[in-house]
Order: sequence, then structure tokens, then C-alpha cells
Amino acid sequence: MTTTQLNQLSHRIGTINALSKGEVGQNRLVYSPTWISAQQQVINWGLQLGFDVTVDDFGTTYMDIPGTVHPDQIIAAGSHIDTVAQGGRFDGLYGVLGGLQAIENLLESVGRPKKTLRLISFSEEEGSRFPDTFTGSKHYTGQPINLAMTDPNGVSFEDARRNAVAKLKITGVKSGRPELPSTFTELHIEQGPRLIDHHLQIGLVTSIVGQRRFTVTVKGIANHAGTTPMDERADALEMAVTLISDLSQQAHQLDKGLTFTVGEMHISPNTSNVIPGLVTFSIDTRHNNEAVLDQFEQIINQVVERSQDTNIINSVNRWAKSDVTHLDDQLLAANQKIADRLGFSSTQLASGAGHDSQIMAKVTRTTMIFVPSINGISHAPEENTSQEDLLRGVELLTESLHQQAY
Amino acid sequence: MTTTQLNQLSHRIGTINALSKGEVGQNRLVYSPTWISAQQQVINWGLQLGFDVTVDDFGTTYMDIPGTVHPDQIIAAGSHIDTVAQGGRFDGLYGVLGGLQAIENLLESVGRPKKTLRLISFSEEEGSRFPDTFTGSKHYTGQPINLAMTDPNGVSFEDARRNAVAKLKITGVKSGRPELPSTFTELHIEQGPRLIDHHLQIGLVTSIVGQRRFTVTVKGIANHAGTTPMDERADALEMAVTLISDLSQQAHQLDKGLTFTVGEMHISPNTSNVIPGLVTFSIDTRHNNEAVLDQFEQIINQVVERSQDTNIINSVNRWAKSDVTHLDDQLLAANQKIADRLGFSSTQLASGAGHDSQIMAKVTRTTMIFVPSINGISHAPEENTSQEDLLRGVELLTESLHQQAY
Repeated sequence: MTTTQLNQLSHRIGTINALSKGEVGQNRLVYSPTWISAQQQVINWGLQLGFDVTVDDFGTTYMDIPGTVHPDQIIAAGSHIDTVAQGGRFDGLYGVLGGLQAIENLLESVGRPKKTLRLISFSEEEGSRFPDTFTGSKHYTGQPINLAMTDPNGVSFEDARRNAVAKLKITGVKSGRPELPSTFTELHIEQGPRLIDHHLQIGLVTSIVGQRRFTVTVKGIANHAGTTPMDERADALEMAVTLISDLSQQAHQLDKGLTFTVGEMHISPNTSNVIPGLVTFSIDTRHNNEAVLDQFEQIINQVVERSQDTNIINSVNRWAKSDVTHLDDQLLAANQKIADRLGFSSTQLASGAGHDSQIMAKVTRTTMIFVPSINGISHAPEENTSQEDLLRGVELLTESLHQQAY
Repeated sequence: MTTTQLNQLSHRIGTINALSKGEVGQNRLVYSPTWISAQQQVINWGLQLGFDVTVDDFGTTYMDIPGTVHPDQIIAAGSHIDTVAQGGRFDGLYGVLGGLQAIENLLESVGRPKKTLRLISFSEEEGSRFPDTFTGSKHYTGQPINLAMTDPNGVSFEDARRNAVAKLKITGVKSGRPELPSTFTELHIEQGPRLIDHHLQIGLVTSIVGQRRFTVTVKGIANHAGTTPMDERADALEMAVTLISDLSQQAHQLDKGLTFTVGEMHISPNTSNVIPGLVTFSIDTRHNNEAVLDQFEQIINQVVERSQDTNIINSVNRWAKSDVTHLDDQLLAANQKIADRLGFSSTQLASGAGHDSQIMAKVTRTTMIFVPSINGISHAPEENTSQEDLLRGVELLTESLHQQAY
């Protein structure tokens, strides 16, 4: 990969990230104004480079270079364009623009492919605005999605979706949901510390952990902070704090490999001199063994159920579940050979993060390539990967696509 | 008090509360559009009834009926017009409109007073929008206020204040901060369960508890909920939960009479799949003995200090402090006599809530009259007081003002 190509990749990454300029981190929550501008920019790059661009009605964008011999056999690469709130510069975006760069590299160096090369920019993966995850790849692969969702501000998924997708109908862009690819390769930052801690340059993903997300609701009674005797309170926050302590302990005892995160919490009325009457909090829990997740889900239900009393009512709702996913062994082996040939130090590992690949793997042969995350940080403004590592990932992807499509 | 007068009081209370129609509870946060409409309505009622109306530059409204013999001796009644978020129908407002009704009753039944009668509608008491409390009565009595405050949305106190007060400059309204009164009587709901639990009709307030409010800030490192090993996290919410559990336990052990409330909490970025990097929470603590408050403040500082580690930094800031206040004994005794004469069952009690009276008591003879709160609930939409009890409070206030001003 030439310096020109690397500069172009850096420039494009910078261009998309500049859309969140002046904010804390990246904020491309699905269907937000920043998200719309980002997906429009990706589409415009595709049109300028002569790709056939199609947008489906969730806003996922497909950019094809038709194959000269087997146009119906599609070799796809890509990732998601959305971010969490206050997210990083590379999560998702690197797989979209790295994939675009890899295809561009091949067009420049070896010309048109025999099979169709496709770059996919999925609309949404993070589940950070609406209470569902991977809606982009789920829609592409025909999985059910709860369309009645609303975001924390009460904006409905359907209204947000229609408004945003309408703005992607740029001249030259087709509408529709194209046929599924023969393979899907997702280039992504590791988002964890394992590669960086072991000074490795490439991670080849064997499987993706299963994860479940819950919302716990605690209903107490809002009351005056000064006049309500301590023993006559129904303090929803005090109860929530007890539940979180208890569950965090039990998760730790159950299995050291089980991740347990309370990342989101809403307190009502959220005023310093009022006892909270209503608190909701999220639970995100992951493991590469389904049985452990089943066990912990039982524990959550038990703890939440038995803690409530006559004045405080607790309830729990699981709103997201994804099983452990095993990725394609042949593509893994092939990428391992390429990494070795290119002289990249690498390891094979399971992904602790969920990815569109786990959705794509249900319908097609799928593989993932990780590059190191500095300090293992992601989903945060400090998320970073060295230029050299970004370059290695794209080189490996380029070689892999070459092997598959030419 | 006649049925007409009672209906008028109920009608006026209904008119102000209707301004928050369609919302959860009352939302007259200081200087909000609803607050502006409410204070404008009070001013218009005053003007219609022939009061001399003055508004100071914090938006506190003073409505006078000049005395015929000693116009310079001022007998004042009133309370605050603001509410907490999702507050109740009577907190503050009952003292404003009940005071207005009492003065109107006297004008109808015994004509002009010898001393000046003044109704005060204080701009702010709750401390629910900006991080300071009692700013209305503090400004009137010349106490310092931090003008550099901003609300959670970053709106500055000064901008909000200027914009709102400008809208109160109705024709016929004077601008300025009038001289202090000779006495101040505040009619208020108890906001606690003691009167209702003992089937009492009137509470006469001996003193007001001291209270202190703090904000605790926990700085961790935001990171990915799935890829960050449990033992490599700097989870700000997990730390906050530990601090709250610990402090709540220590408050309980220190003194059963000490109230401890965490009413407000902010989590950043507040997304289910991101480990929180920053959490702030409030502490509201009250007692009628300064020494206990001093002890607990030490405990807060110790716990917050010793809990932090290399990855998580905690800090605590006390932003509000009010000492235990003893109200006027003569006015208390006089009101006790009136209550007995009217045949109202009553008790003398300390207030667990802070009130403008504790600020006024620093500069003038001050007393408070409580009426029962159904189920002891306040600072919540369920806050309620029976028509009969509302009536009794106004009758007692009417008699008290008659005794003082005629």
C-alpha cells in the first residue's frame, strides 16, 4: 500500500470525524444529523470512484464493483457507520473506509475483479440510540426488528429512519436491498487490550461472545429529602444501588470471564432535594459460553424479584440477546497464511465485542480482522490505533479480497 | 373565611397549577417559562386588588397595602413561587396565595390596616435548577449569592434571571428592593407525615433543621463494556455505587435523626455498552444539631478520599449549607393562642425542610404555620392537603396578621 493510499485513508477518516468537531468524541448516533452527513459522504466517495451504489430502507449503503466473470458471486467487506455517544475515531468507521481503500487499492493495482467486490456501510450496530443492536445487518439478513422502538427523547425509530434515509437518496443512488454476498470480511479495531499488551499487530477472530442486555426498573415513591423519616422512605435510587452492588458481586463470583456493566442509568425526578421515585438502569453482560449467560440471567431475575417490598416494585426486561457466534474456519486459515506471508505478528482470538459479523455469519461465510487498540480503549474519545497498524489491517484485507475475488 | 373566599383560593391555586398542565407534576423551576407566567399571574392579581406591587432584580415580588397609621411598619407574609422538577401543587404556592387570600379577607372584613401589610412571592427557594438555594430571600436580605452559576444545560443564572425579570416589568409595577419587614409569617404545607399521622390540623414551627448539600464527582475511564477485562476497569458508576452504599450505612449508624438523600445523579456517557467514565451525584443531609452535620461532613470527606485509586479520582464539593434556625418565640406563642381559640388541634415542631423563613429569621422576627400533608408526601405530583386544612391555615394566618397589623 502506497503512502498516497495511506494518506487518502487518513484523510477520509479525518473528514468523517470532523463532522463531530467541537463535541466530546464522535457522535454518529444512528439517523442523527451527523450520521446522515457521514453516510452521504461515504456515498459520494463511492459515486466518485465509479461504484454502483445502493441504499436500503434502513440506510445501509452497498457499493459494488461488478465482477467481470462471476458478477453474481459477491465478495463483501465493511462495517458500521454509527458510533456510541462520545465514541472513538475508528470503531466501525475503520472497517468502512479501510474496506473502501482496500477495494480502491485492488482497482489501481490489478484492475477489475472477476467476482463482484462490495463495500458495505451498515446503518447501525451499537444499539446506543434505540434499544436494539445491529439493526443494519439484521435488516439486510432479514432478521426481525422491533419497529415500535423510541429513543430516550421519545423520537420513534420509524420517524428517525424515514427522515434520515430520505436524505441519502442522492442522484445516481439505487434504492433496495441487494442479494446477500458469498463472503463477508469485517476489518475492525480490537477495542480491547490483548493485542497491544502482547505487542501483536493483527488479531484473527475465531468467534464472538454472546451478549444480553437488560433494563431494570425500580419504582419507589418520590418524596421530600428533609421531611421524610429515613425509615418511611421508598427510595428508588437506594434500591437500585443495592441491586447493582449485589449483581456485580454475583457476576464476579459466577465466572471471572463474565463481563457485567451498568452503563446507563436514569433517575427521576433527579433533583438533589427529592428522594428518587423512579430509577432505571441497564445491564450489559457477555461470555463465550451460553450456559454462563443463562445462569446469570436467572440470577438477575431472582435478585430483582426478591429485593422488592410493598413500597418498591422492581422489574427487569431483556431487550437484546445475541448468541455465541463461530466464524468461518477456511477464511480464518487463509487470512492466517496471508498475515504470516506479510510478516505480521498475529494471534487468533475471540471477540469480546459484538459485531455485524455475528449477524452476517448466520447467512454467509464470515471472518474478522482486528488491529490493536492503544491502551485497549474504545467507545471513548481516547480510542486510538497507530498509523502503522491501520495500514497493516488494510494490507491484509486487500490481500484477502484479492485472493477471494480475482 | 367565607365559601366565596375559599373558592377563590382554590381557583387561584388551580390557575397557577394549570400552567404545568400536561406535564408530570408542577414544573415552575426558577426563571422557566412556567415560572414567568406564574409570577406574572400573581402580579396581575395584586394589581387588580389595588396592591402596590414591586419586583426586585431577582424576580421576587412584593405586594403592599400601605398602613394608615404606621406605613413604615411592615407585617409581611408569603413564600416562594418556584417548585422542584415534577413537584406538587402546594409547596410554596400555598404560602403565596394563602397569604394573598388572608390579606384580602382582612381588607373585606376590617378594611385598611394601621401597619403596612405585605405579600411576598419569593423568586426561588428549592435550589432545583441552579446549585444554590433560597436565592430569592437571600437576595432580599442581602446575603451573598454565586452569580456565576449555570444550570445542567449550561444556561447561566444571570442570563436566565435577566430574561425572566424583564418579563415581570408589567405596567404599574415598580422596580426595586423594598425595606425589610418588622415580621414575616410563612404559611406552608408540612411536607412530612407528623401532623397527618397524629391527626393534627396545625403545626407551629419552633426551628428549622440545618442542611448541607454536596456534589461528589467520580472520574474513571470510559471503555468498551465487552472487551475490557473486569480486572482492568476504571468504572466510575461502580465506584459511585460503592460510595453511596458506604455513606448511606455510615449516616444510619451515626444518628437515626440524620437524613441522607442521593437525589441527583449524572452518568457519562450514559450508554448501555460503555463503562461509565464520569459520574456525579448529590448528597442532601439534614439534622437539627450542627455537631452531627459536622461529623457527617468529615465522614463524607474521608470516605470519598480513601476510596479512590490510581485509575479513579473522587472529589467532593459542598455547595449549600444552612445552619439550624430558631424562629421567633413571641409570634409562636401568639399563634398558639389563636390556634387554641379557633379550636384547631395543633403541635409545635421543628421543620425538616428548609424554608425562606430561615433566611428571613436572620433579619426579622419570623414564624411559620404548617398544615398537614396527606401521606406526608411532597416534592412529588401526589403532594396534597385537604380543603379543610388549607382553609384552617389561611384562617390562622388571617387572625395572626389582624393581630399584628391592626
